[in-house]
Amino acid sequence: MDSTMTQTIAQKLTAIRQHMAAANLDAFIVPRADEYLGEYVPEHNQRLLWCSDFTGSAGTVIILKDRAAIFTDGRYTIQVKQQVNAECFEFYHLVDTPHMAWLSEQLPADANVGFDAKVHNLNWYQDSLATLTEQHMNLVAVDQNPVDLSWADRPQPTQNMGLLLEQKYTGLSSLEKRQQIGADIAKQGADAAIISALDSIAWLLNIRGKDIHCFCVILGSAVLMKDGSMTFFTDPAKIPAGFAQHVGAGVTIVAEAEATATYKNLGKQGLNVLADPETSNAFSQLTAQTSGATLIAGLDPVATPKACKNSTELFGMQQAHIRDAASEIRFLAWLEAEVAQGNLYDEGFLSDKLTEFRASNENYVELSFDTISAAGSNAAMCHYNHMNGTPAMLPMDSIYLVDSGAQYLDGTTDITRTVAIGTPSAEHKKMFTLVLKGHIALAQMKFPAGTNGAQLDSLARQFLWQQGYDYDHGTGHGVGCFLNVHEGPQRIAKNANAVALEPGMVVSNEPGYYKQDEYGIRCENLIYVVEKGNGHDGKTFYQFETLTLVPFDLRLIEQSLLTKDEVNWINSYHVEVKAKISASLTGSDLAWLEQATQAI
Amino acid sequence: MDSTMTQTIAQKLTAIRQHMAAANLDAFIVPRADEYLGEYVPEHNQRLLWCSDFTGSAGTVIILKDRAAIFTDGRYTIQVKQQVNAECFEFYHLVDTPHMAWLSEQLPADANVGFDAKVHNLNWYQDSLATLTEQHMNLVAVDQNPVDLSWADRPQPTQNMGLLLEQKYTGLSSLEKRQQIGADIAKQGADAAIISALDSIAWLLNIRGKDIHCFCVILGSAVLMKDGSMTFFTDPAKIPAGFAQHVGAGVTIVAEAEATATYKNLGKQGLNVLADPETSNAFSQLTAQTSGATLIAGLDPVATPKACKNSTELFGMQQAHIRDAASEIRFLAWLEAEVAQGNLYDEGFLSDKLTEFRASNENYVELSFDTISAAGSNAAMCHYNHMNGTPAMLPMDSIYLVDSGAQYLDGTTDITRTVAIGTPSAEHKKMFTLVLKGHIALAQMKFPAGTNGAQLDSLARQFLWQQGYDYDHGTGHGVGCFLNVHEGPQRIAKNANAVALEPGMVVSNEPGYYKQDEYGIRCENLIYVVEKGNGHDGKTFYQFETLTLVPFDLRLIEQSLLTKDEVNWINSYHVEVKAKISASLTGSDLAWLEQATQAI
Repeated sequence: MDSTMTQTIAQKLTAIRQHMAAANLDAFIVPRADEYLGEYVPEHNQRLLWCSDFTGSAGTVIILKDRAAIFTDGRYTIQVKQQVNAECFEFYHLVDTPHMAWLSEQLPADANVGFDAKVHNLNWYQDSLATLTEQHMNLVAVDQNPVDLSWADRPQPTQNMGLLLEQKYTGLSSLEKRQQIGADIAKQGADAAIISALDSIAWLLNIRGKDIHCFCVILGSAVLMKDGSMTFFTDPAKIPAGFAQHVGAGVTIVAEAEATATYKNLGKQGLNVLADPETSNAFSQLTAQTSGATLIAGLDPVATPKACKNSTELFGMQQAHIRDAASEIRFLAWLEAEVAQGNLYDEGFLSDKLTEFRASNENYVELSFDTISAAGSNAAMCHYNHMNGTPAMLPMDSIYLVDSGAQYLDGTTDITRTVAIGTPSAEHKKMFTLVLKGHIALAQMKFPAGTNGAQLDSLARQFLWQQGYDYDHGTGHGVGCFLNVHEGPQRIAKNANAVALEPGMVVSNEPGYYKQDEYGIRCENLIYVVEKGNGHDGKTFYQFETLTLVPFDLRLIEQSLLTKDEVNWINSYHVEVKAKISASLTGSDLAWLEQATQAI
Repeated sequence: MDSTMTQTIAQKLTAIRQHMAAANLDAFIVPRADEYLGEYVPEHNQRLLWCSDFTGSAGTVIILKDRAAIFTDGRYTIQVKQQVNAECFEFYHLVDTPHMAWLSEQLPADANVGFDAKVHNLNWYQDSLATLTEQHMNLVAVDQNPVDLSWADRPQPTQNMGLLLEQKYTGLSSLEKRQQIGADIAKQGADAAIISALDSIAWLLNIRGKDIHCFCVILGSAVLMKDGSMTFFTDPAKIPAGFAQHVGAGVTIVAEAEATATYKNLGKQGLNVLADPETSNAFSQLTAQTSGATLIAGLDPVATPKACKNSTELFGMQQAHIRDAASEIRFLAWLEAEVAQGNLYDEGFLSDKLTEFRASNENYVELSFDTISAAGSNAAMCHYNHMNGTPAMLPMDSIYLVDSGAQYLDGTTDITRTVAIGTPSAEHKKMFTLVLKGHIALAQMKFPAGTNGAQLDSLARQFLWQQGYDYDHGTGHGVGCFLNVHEGPQRIAKNANAVALEPGMVVSNEPGYYKQDEYGIRCENLIYVVEKGNGHDGKTFYQFETLTLVPFDLRLIEQSLLTKDEVNWINSYHVEVKAKISASLTGSDLAWLEQATQAI
C-alpha cells in the first residue's frame, strides 16, 4: 500500500494476517513491550498501539485468522473501550481472562501460535510454552515480526547523543560499580550476566540518554563479565566523546545487530550466564542456551545496588526535591489565586503551566512522566491522560488531582497533590482525610529489617478498608536517581514480591481513592528507607525519611477524623516544608506557603 | 541389646549408624514428622525425640558416620541446648543454616544420603534431590528406617476406638462432603486424590479418634475418587459399629499395609492423581507416579471446604466457646483470689487446675494442646512447656501467661490470657497495651475479599514496630472444628501464603511480646470471617466476629496509650463477654466477671 496513506486498524490487521499466513501461523501475540522490556516504549517500537490504537501502559493483543482480542487490566477497563474499535477487537480483563489461557481455548490442537522472542521475557515464554504444550499447540518464534513487516510508516529510532553523568551526581565510578557487581555475579556461580534493563545499563556506565520520552536511557543491551568488563550493544553514534575515559577500563561498544553473535559466543565457551527471566528478553537467553550456555535465573544483579541509593545519590535526590517543591508550590499558589478570581483553566493548560515552573529549575532535564492533570470526574481514572481527548475545564467546587515529576541531573521527582477548587464537599474531605491517614501511617512507620512491601501495604489502606473502601493500585513503587520513575526490585503493594526494603531505597507513598464518574484523590510523596538504631531486643529497625516537600491541602482535611499523632505529623511535615522551601520563594508565593503550612 | 535397658543417646546413634553402614549410607535424615506429616506425632512415631531427646514441635536431625547435627528454629534456640547432649550433636538454626544446604557441604561427591520417603513430603523430596544432585550426591530412599530398626523399646500404636460424629455437629453428611469434593477433584482434571492430612480424612468421614494426644483423629491415609467414593487405609479394629450407615455409600476400609498396592493401582490405570506436595508424603506420590500415574500438584482438596466452617459448625464453635470461657473465667477468678491471699502455686498445679475447670464441661473430650502455663521469665519462651523441667512457682509482682484450649464435640478452643500477679510494672503495662492494641487493630479490621494473612499481619504488629519491638511468631493460625487446633490453608503471618481469608474461616488473633529472661505477653482470641455487606463501589468486604469470650486483664492496661476507639472496643467486648457468660456463673465467679468487665 501507499505509505503516505494512513492505514486503518482493519487494514493493519489484514496486513498482519497476510504475514501470519505466509508463516503458517494461526495466531500472533503482540505485547505492549518491545525488545527492551521497559515500562516506556519508544515510538518506533509501539507495536501494540500501532495495531490497536490503545495508548495504555499495559496490555496484550492476540490476532487470530478472523478475530482479534485485547487484554487490559482494571486501570484501563474504561479507556480501552473508548480507544479501540470494537468491530476489530474483543475486550478482556487480563486478570479474569489470562491471554494464554484464553488463546489455548480458541484454537485446535496442532495450531501454530507465533511470537517474537525479542519482545517477551523468559518467564512469559516458559509459562506460555507450558500452557500451549498442554493443549498440544505449538509456540513458534518468528524470524521477522509480522507487525514490523506490515508497518508502512514506522518512525525511525531516535538519534540523540548520550550524556556522561559526572561522579558528583553518581558517587561511584562506572569501574567501581562494574567490579562490585562483577564480584556479585561470580558469587552466584556465573561467569557473565545479560543486563537488559536500560536503567541498569545507564546506572552501571554512569551515562544517560534521551531515547525514550521521560526516561533518560540509551537503547541497547549489555553483557557484564564477572571481572567487571562489559560489552554494550547500542548505536555507537550515540556515545559521546570522552566515553572511554569516563567509564574506565573494560567497556566495549558494539552495534546492536552484533549482540546475537555475542550471546552465541557465551554459549560456545560453555559459560554460566546469569539473566533475569523477568527483565531479559527470551531471545537473548534462548540464543545463549541453545549455543551451550548454562542459564542461571536470578534478579538483575544491578537492580538492588541501583535501588539502594548511596549518600551522593540521596543528597542529589534531596536537592532535586527542594527545587521541584518550589516549582510545585509556585504552581499551587498561582492556581489558588486564579481560581479565587474565577479563572478555571483546562487540564492541558494547567499541565503546561506546571511544566513551565519546573523547566526553569537548575539541573532540569525533562519530565519524569507525562503529567496526570485531572479535573473533577477525570481523576477517577487513576492513569488519566488529558492528551487522549479534549482536556476538561476545572469545575468549580471540585477537587483537582495533579501527578507529576521531573528528571534533574541530580535526581528524579514524582509527586501527587489533590487540591480543592472552590469549596470541597463533606465527602471530598472525608475521603481525602482517609487517604491522608493511610499516607501518614506508612510515612511514620518503623519496621524490622526483612519487612517487604506486601507487609506494609495494608498500613496505608487500613482507614479506607475500615469504612469499606479501597484503591486498585499499589501503594508505592521504587524510584531511580535521574533514572526510571518506576524501578524495582522493591514495591509496596498487595501482591508485592518478597524483596525486603533496605536502607537507601526510594519508594513512593501514594494511597488514593477513586469514585467512578465523580472524583479521584491521591496523596503522593517520595520517601526513602533509613536505619536510625532504634530497634530493641537486638533487632534492626528501619523507618522512612520524606523527600517531597509540598504542603497537603488543609482545606481538604476533616480534622475530626485525625488522631493527635496524625495532626502532629501534618504540622511537623509542614514546618519542615516551610523551613526548607521558604528561601526559594518570594512575595505571594511565600505568603501562600506560610498560609498553606500553618499549624492545624 | 537388652530391651529392658534404657538406651542412651550415644547408644542409639551407634545403633542407627550400624544400620546406616549396612545400607551403605553416609548420612541419614530424621525429621520430626512421621508418615502422617501432621503437626502432632503419636508417641510410637516420635523418632526425632527418641534419638535426640529434643521435645520441640519442629526440627531435623542429620546423622553422619561420626557426627550428628540438630536443626531447630528461633522458638527453640534455648530449649534445644537444654535438652540435647552437646557431646552428640552440633546445633544449627534452620533458617540461617538450612539442613540440606549444610549437609551438601559436609560430604564428598557420590555420598549416599538416606531418607525415609514416608516421613517427608514431596516438596522436601524434590528440593533435596535438586540440592544433592547439584553436588553430585545421591538421595537414597531406605526400605526400612534405621531409627525403627534401632528402636528397642518402641511403644505400640494406640488402639482407641473411633467416634462417629453426629450430623448435628457436622452440618453435612459424609456423602455430601465426598460428592462435593469429588466434583472439585474432577474440575482440576484429576480422577482421584491422595488425602493424607488426618484432619481432612476425619472431616470427610465425620469421624473422630484418639490416636494422637489432643488431636482427635484416626491414623491412616485415604484415596478419594472423583465420584466421591473413598478408600480409607487404617486399622479396621478402630472403626466403630454403624460406620457404614454413618458415612453412606462408597467408603471402603482397608488395612494400612495395603495402601501401597492401591497407589500402584492408580498408576497402572494411568489415572491423573491430585496430591498436595506439602501435606502428602513422598512415598505415596512417588509410588503412584512410578507405576504410571500423572501427578497433579494442588492444595489438599479438603483443606478449604474444611476451613470454611458451615453454619452448624460455627454455631457449635460459639457454644463450645461459651462453655470454655466460663471455665477460663472460673480459673482466673480462683487465681486472683488465691494470689490475693498470698498463695502462689507452681505452673503445673495451675495448668491442672485449669484443666479441672474445663473437664467438667458438657461435650468436653480432651485438651486441644498441652497447656502453656508460664510464670514470670518462663513466658519469654513462647512455646514453653512446664513438663520439660521443674514447674516454676508464680513470682509476686509479675505477669502469668496461660495458653490453653479444649476439644469439645461441637468445637475447638484456643485462648491465651496474660494476667497480673500482684502489681505489674509500668513496663509490663506498656508492653501489654501495645500487644493489645495490635490485637484490637486486627479484630476490628474490615478488609476486601481477596486479602490474605500476610497483608493483615502487620496491622497487629504496627504499635510494637512503632517503638522498635516485634514478636517472632505468626499472628494467627487456622483452627478446626473439633479438629486440629492448627489448620490450614489460611494463616496470618509475615510470610503467610497467598490464600485469601474467606467467610467461615476461623483464625487465632495472637500478637505477643517476649523479653528474654524477663517476661512474656500474648493476647489470643479466636475470630472468624464474616461478610456483612458493608463494602462500597461494588467491592465485597469481610470482617471478623470474635468467638473467645474472656476479659482481658484491665490491671495490665496503660490507658494513656489507647485511642478512644480502642477503649470503646475493649468496653464493647467486655459488655459482650458479660452478657454471654454471666448466666454460666454464680457467686464469687460472677462477682469477678462483673469487676473484670467494668467499663474503662
